[in-house]
Amino acid sequence: MNRQTMNHLPSRLVICFALALLCTTSWNTIAAPKNVILIIGDGFDDQHVTMGRNYLTGMSGTLILDGLPFRGAVQVETLSASGEPEYVADSANTATAIATGRITSVGRVGTDIADEDLPTIAERAIGAGLRVGLVTTSSITDATPASFLAHVSSRSCEGPEEILGSTYYGLPQPVCPQDAKQNNGPGSIIEQLFSSKAHILFGGGQKFLNQIMASGESIRSLAEKNGFRVITDRDELSEIQTDQAIIGLFDTENLEVKWRGSDGRRAAPTETSWLHSLSDFLGEATPPEIMECEPNPAFAATPELASMTATALRHLSASNESGFFLMVESASIDKQSHKRNPCGSLGEIAQLEEVLAVSLEFAGQHNDTLVMVTADHAQAAQILPEPSHYSDYPVPIYSPGHTARVRTREGSVMRINYATNNGFSEEHTGANVPLFANLSDPKLLKPFMKQRDLYHAMMTFLGLNSGDNELKD
Amino acid sequence: MNRQTMNHLPSRLVICFALALLCTTSWNTIAAPKNVILIIGDGFDDQHVTMGRNYLTGMSGTLILDGLPFRGAVQVETLSASGEPEYVADSANTATAIATGRITSVGRVGTDIADEDLPTIAERAIGAGLRVGLVTTSSITDATPASFLAHVSSRSCEGPEEILGSTYYGLPQPVCPQDAKQNNGPGSIIEQLFSSKAHILFGGGQKFLNQIMASGESIRSLAEKNGFRVITDRDELSEIQTDQAIIGLFDTENLEVKWRGSDGRRAAPTETSWLHSLSDFLGEATPPEIMECEPNPAFAATPELASMTATALRHLSASNESGFFLMVESASIDKQSHKRNPCGSLGEIAQLEEVLAVSLEFAGQHNDTLVMVTADHAQAAQILPEPSHYSDYPVPIYSPGHTARVRTREGSVMRINYATNNGFSEEHTGANVPLFANLSDPKLLKPFMKQRDLYHAMMTFLGLNSGDNELKD
Repeated sequence: MNRQTMNHLPSRLVICFALALLCTTSWNTIAAPKNVILIIGDGFDDQHVTMGRNYLTGMSGTLILDGLPFRGAVQVETLSASGEPEYVADSANTATAIATGRITSVGRVGTDIADEDLPTIAERAIGAGLRVGLVTTSSITDATPASFLAHVSSRSCEGPEEILGSTYYGLPQPVCPQDAKQNNGPGSIIEQLFSSKAHILFGGGQKFLNQIMASGESIRSLAEKNGFRVITDRDELSEIQTDQAIIGLFDTENLEVKWRGSDGRRAAPTETSWLHSLSDFLGEATPPEIMECEPNPAFAATPELASMTATALRHLSASNESGFFLMVESASIDKQSHKRNPCGSLGEIAQLEEVLAVSLEFAGQHNDTLVMVTADHAQAAQILPEPSHYSDYPVPIYSPGHTARVRTREGSVMRINYATNNGFSEEHTGANVPLFANLSDPKLLKPFMKQRDLYHAMMTFLGLNSGDNELKD
Repeated sequence: MNRQTMNHLPSRLVICFALALLCTTSWNTIAAPKNVILIIGDGFDDQHVTMGRNYLTGMSGTLILDGLPFRGAVQVETLSASGEPEYVADSANTATAIATGRITSVGRVGTDIADEDLPTIAERAIGAGLRVGLVTTSSITDATPASFLAHVSSRSCEGPEEILGSTYYGLPQPVCPQDAKQNNGPGSIIEQLFSSKAHILFGGGQKFLNQIMASGESIRSLAEKNGFRVITDRDELSEIQTDQAIIGLFDTENLEVKWRGSDGRRAAPTETSWLHSLSDFLGEATPPEIMECEPNPAFAATPELASMTATALRHLSASNESGFFLMVESASIDKQSHKRNPCGSLGEIAQLEEVLAVSLEFAGQHNDTLVMVTADHAQAAQILPEPSHYSDYPVPIYSPGHTARVRTREGSVMRINYATNNGFSEEHTGANVPLFANLSDPKLLKPFMKQRDLYHAMMTFLGLNSGDNELKD
């Protein structure tokens, strides 16, 4: 033992004592794991996390998720239809990876590239007697929630009508005839969700309730026949009995978002002067006016994501000795980034933070609860200098895409850029995504994981067999 | 103790035993901290980390840095000249934050917004008898290395000529008259670096050697008068004596990069057909041809960053009982991203991985060594879908910026987009940046830190006083 080591002897004792204490006090957490709350921020990459931090808490502030004891990075894996690596995903193949531990191709829901159904953590949890809830700000049939309880070859097969044909921005969408009931398949996404043994399904998607299945029955009657109570008004959230499985659909399709830009403004192209059309080096470029984020009037009757989550937690935990798996998605971080609407995304990030607060409070009262926050894939938005770092140059310097200048709560202007394509909807991007958790257990969560590893981590925490065994529901 | 707890008793013993073992075996690491190797990837944000992973190891591969036991995120903080929060940084204010624990404004090197000099970790280390090395692929006078040993009001004040006036792309750059020797200041960046007690200064910047100072002496004679041996040939790296302070300048300005795109190609605008000029909905868009990354012929005589690092480690550790601080910068991840040259950035990421391998090998032999990898700020490049997720739509969908399609080693095509501005150089972006380390000590490194916290973490590890005391060199 050298002199330096001897000098540190007292601190060595402190460290060993601390480890022993940790070993004792954290014991209950390790001994009786049973609840998983998985919070997915759709498109919630590090640019969006930082946008949220800057807007909500300021440049030097900290989000609730920044205070969590674990943070890592997760590699997103995508296959082409023929099984080659691809570097950018969508919400269907990523949610499938998280839900099943298997990688697949863009657009696939709970199926591999050979169209085999992949058992999900939610199905295995139900099979083992745990309760399951899915809560989202999208339609309940959207790719992320769908991938936890449904198996179709394309995310577009949301209802019994869409499974045989639909359009998106005028373009015919993939169909899933082999999954249709009339072909002895398991049916569309909504049919599979409403035939599951889930306890809570909250989101949008009222438009599917009146669709008619091959049997001639409506989706609503399918739900009721399978023991669900169907609610469509947020006021019912506080009234419902905890012993019944509940479907809550609070909008026609996706839920409205909480915030919008001043007067509904989104990011916009930079205006350039006539002279600039003659030469890149001439004329003026005028960026869009600064905007504030304001409440979105259309949100008025929409339940908060945190309120749906609190209800879900009450229902999933009431008189339940077997634990639960709850997936909560803040879906429109991504959807509003597609639409170049930073305030829309920021409102959804604020909702994610509120959900995390509710979840951590629950975990504080039920210390056998793993709370994880992650994203499914990265998205288009980038924070740019305001003004450009090249604004002193005597030529017009501006983004070739769409720009928004958002005033943050601390009063500075945050410039957000969307420039991945020239079309009606921005592209996803390929960066690894963040992972946060309320416990730091190196056996469970590692600093770098692949998205499919998250399935195995959650299954291990729940004490479920995560192998390739048959689906048991 | 409930039944579940009892069932876990054997595993409890295993965990406690493992903790006890950890407590014992890691003791030397905790007892005698003395070396810090800080690796900065300039612009090495999560998009670039993922670009490197996809290219070098494949979609499902892992970089060396992915295997490190600690990973966190670091918030970048920037002030305006008047002290308001800004959301996008440059390499000067970020390196200053890391080097001094204090935040400042874009372009400032080792000074706060009141132009006060801020003591740096390198200066404090020298003052405490530790050795110091700075190694970079940029000019040694560039913002990142400069911020560890110099104090000027603008990064442009690199040499005795530039301190009184220079241009960049034709635009006059800020001057620092108050810092000039003739005004009784500490001199330009190169004068301050070469007047320091650093042991190793490796990078580019030969062009400064023949600049003449106010005293009439050349920079080369300043270096030699201050006890440095000056080398300019990489072959000398293996010959030099370890007991002498060395300046190694291996190129005129920045070092050449290791890789380039096929035939020197960079990202390029998408070509559109004549018909498309009539309407957004008409015509064809043809993205640039796929490129491979190939060796850059201009790199031939350039020392590898890992080779400079290995030499630096040998010199800093030889007959040294007091420890050292070494900063190694892979500078051109950022510089090549500005130039829309993904293969240039990828070669620099490959170099960073090699540096990390060398550093971890050193740390394996000297277990009192903290190896940290971080970025200074985020950068423009984004990984986009190949092809676009909207490529089935019957309208031309393409990036409004510059696109490269890079074939990775595993054979897939990775599309990289640069679209932050229309000018000659892309913008930095504002996402928080990753942090990796070879040890996971929650007292030292937390999952979320601010950039200035890194200074305090390194100072604590080195056992140095990180307070606001006067500079003691």
